[in-house]
Amino acid sequence: MSVKGNMIIGQSGGPTAVINSSLAGAFEAAKAAGVKKIYGMHYGIEGFLNENIIDLRKELKDSADVSLLRRTPSAFLGSCRYKLPKIEGNEDVYEKIFKIMEKYDIQYFLYNGGNDSMDMVKMLSDYAEQHGKTQKFMGIPKTIDNDLPITDHCPGFGSAAKYIATTLKEVVADATCYGPYRKSALIVEIMGRHAGWLTAAAALGGNKPDLIYLPEVSFDPKDFVERVKKIAEEKSSVIIAVSEGIKLADGTFVCEQGAGESKKDAFGHTQLSGVGAYLASMLSAEAGVKARAIEFSTIQRCASHVVSKTDADEAYNAGYLAAKKAFEGCTGEMVVIKVESRAPYVTSYSTFDIHEVANVERKVPDEWIINDGTYVSDEFIEYAQPLIEGELDAYYSNGVPQHLTLSE
Amino acid sequence: MSVKGNMIIGQSGGPTAVINSSLAGAFEAAKAAGVKKIYGMHYGIEGFLNENIIDLRKELKDSADVSLLRRTPSAFLGSCRYKLPKIEGNEDVYEKIFKIMEKYDIQYFLYNGGNDSMDMVKMLSDYAEQHGKTQKFMGIPKTIDNDLPITDHCPGFGSAAKYIATTLKEVVADATCYGPYRKSALIVEIMGRHAGWLTAAAALGGNKPDLIYLPEVSFDPKDFVERVKKIAEEKSSVIIAVSEGIKLADGTFVCEQGAGESKKDAFGHTQLSGVGAYLASMLSAEAGVKARAIEFSTIQRCASHVVSKTDADEAYNAGYLAAKKAFEGCTGEMVVIKVESRAPYVTSYSTFDIHEVANVERKVPDEWIINDGTYVSDEFIEYAQPLIEGELDAYYSNGVPQHLTLSE
Repeated sequence: MSVKGNMIIGQSGGPTAVINSSLAGAFEAAKAAGVKKIYGMHYGIEGFLNENIIDLRKELKDSADVSLLRRTPSAFLGSCRYKLPKIEGNEDVYEKIFKIMEKYDIQYFLYNGGNDSMDMVKMLSDYAEQHGKTQKFMGIPKTIDNDLPITDHCPGFGSAAKYIATTLKEVVADATCYGPYRKSALIVEIMGRHAGWLTAAAALGGNKPDLIYLPEVSFDPKDFVERVKKIAEEKSSVIIAVSEGIKLADGTFVCEQGAGESKKDAFGHTQLSGVGAYLASMLSAEAGVKARAIEFSTIQRCASHVVSKTDADEAYNAGYLAAKKAFEGCTGEMVVIKVESRAPYVTSYSTFDIHEVANVERKVPDEWIINDGTYVSDEFIEYAQPLIEGELDAYYSNGVPQHLTLSE
Repeated sequence: MSVKGNMIIGQSGGPTAVINSSLAGAFEAAKAAGVKKIYGMHYGIEGFLNENIIDLRKELKDSADVSLLRRTPSAFLGSCRYKLPKIEGNEDVYEKIFKIMEKYDIQYFLYNGGNDSMDMVKMLSDYAEQHGKTQKFMGIPKTIDNDLPITDHCPGFGSAAKYIATTLKEVVADATCYGPYRKSALIVEIMGRHAGWLTAAAALGGNKPDLIYLPEVSFDPKDFVERVKKIAEEKSSVIIAVSEGIKLADGTFVCEQGAGESKKDAFGHTQLSGVGAYLASMLSAEAGVKARAIEFSTIQRCASHVVSKTDADEAYNAGYLAAKKAFEGCTGEMVVIKVESRAPYVTSYSTFDIHEVANVERKVPDEWIINDGTYVSDEFIEYAQPLIEGELDAYYSNGVPQHLTLSE
């Protein structure tokens, strides 16, 4: 293949522990293909619109830089939560984007993100097609929530799941250390607004919770208190994993029942917090069990010192393939991972029409949610187990992991 | 030296990531000295009073078990929060303890814990002296809070500090990923009721916070809001580390100002929670900065996958020395670490009269708290840096760290 111009890549949305592995993969693919200028968007499309553009060959001078990049949490290029408006009536924004691309001779445009990002890639490739533009637009999947369709799973999920399984194992060991002498309940609150993949990951790793509540199932507070009471009769410590996004039967978020504030973010999503603390108060008051809550918060998406090697390598491959396919002329597609076999774990990669991906949210299948909506089945374990395996060791210096930072 | 009977060791209070390294050290010392029966208290003195006694030679069959023990979070033997009553008027409890010791021919009694545990060792050795008993009682220091006196620092602190420095570095990278496009504040709430050692550890590691609030200094909400406003004029993300135990000038806990509940634990300590969330609401309302809080909670004391090798080795040595000294006839003392040189880091160990240790709380020195009580000085960095260095690698299998568990 012969490349015709320069490449740019952007990172968008909430970071994952392996988003920079996808950046590394795309960079290496561009280098291998002989792309002259390899650009990064400083703060995603929002920065791009202000021509905040980074010369990646200057930031990643050698393979040591690339190795360190893969061990760096958050979005190395900076991220954004900017959503492109729809084409109709907003042609000026699109014209601006293409004008900047032409100015820098950018022929290949990669965007690494979740649902909203894939929607943007779709609109840009649609606009290019409608206006006879030749630039190629490719999507690289990224989300800890694992809610993108078509692909078996999303880069970012495996490492967040590994963090959750690892940390849950530790906090459960801690919480149960007083044994029969202290009755208690521990509620672990896990990310995942609408899809319960991450909360289900609490079932991996060993010290399993007694109850797991996903947002896919209506939450019944009365039943919850009764179940905890019953478990507490037989065990001194009750462990509960709960998604931040669980809802009552009437559709309202459980966290909104308490003192929790309800705010909307730039995309109109309701901002959630505090469901764990709310349920802990409920148990203390109504189940007679001393309860406390731990929120894994953003640590679960940025703990680059506990990264799944499988996930990091898949993220790298996804970035590499997106670039390679763009150079081959592919546009308006997202990289997807297919799992040919789960044991032994064998995968293949391809790309898929982004129109089928954008704005479709994939949830945990009903048949994997068992025990009246309070646990996940072995099918989930078989699905997720290979994704958390292997370790990408951090580079420690002065007692802490080292990270790559932008030169400016 | 010739040992005269059996040994027992107990673990007490909140666990640390290296409490089991002290257990490993004491076990190895007893093996080396030819102690026949090496016992563990199942759930500390509380379990001991019910004769919940573990045969450690059965649990730790070979060096692989000991290695895994050192990588196991929480208290392997189980812990307790049981405080022994004072001798006067409670002789029956003491008689019971000595009766059980005689039944099992226990001549050496080691207890691994913080202030309350050292107080217990003191009372038991006092009782033995008063009643002409020959058993030896030794204390092994353990606390993430680092508030025991005489010793330069406490085993457990270094690993918790390493976790805080590592995770803070990651969450700050995450929180700042939107750069100038999103003004925000992040409050990280760190353990430490009365002593700010752990909160000060936020200054280690790289992505330093802008403000650090220790419980040693009165907290002034108005000044806090003004400082954040000022920093927010120059930086898009303001990072604040705050101790769970900060108090207003009138001595009331800041967390009690909000919706936070105030409960007392078995020792009469006030249970704290939610100061981070409370301050985040304050900033959102009064500083016009969108703020959120992360609480490191118990993860900071049980994250055995991020352990300081320095700390783990010191914990092991402290356990080893406590046993060795007991076999030599020492009683009523606690192991203390002396730092001969901080760079290069050189230490020596000895034991110290436990009467000088018990119930004395060591705080961060005034002169190390700078910027009107909003930061820590380089003296603190020099003090704490060597304690977080080196890594005791976890043993991963199936994607998660492996731990040793009791056989029963």
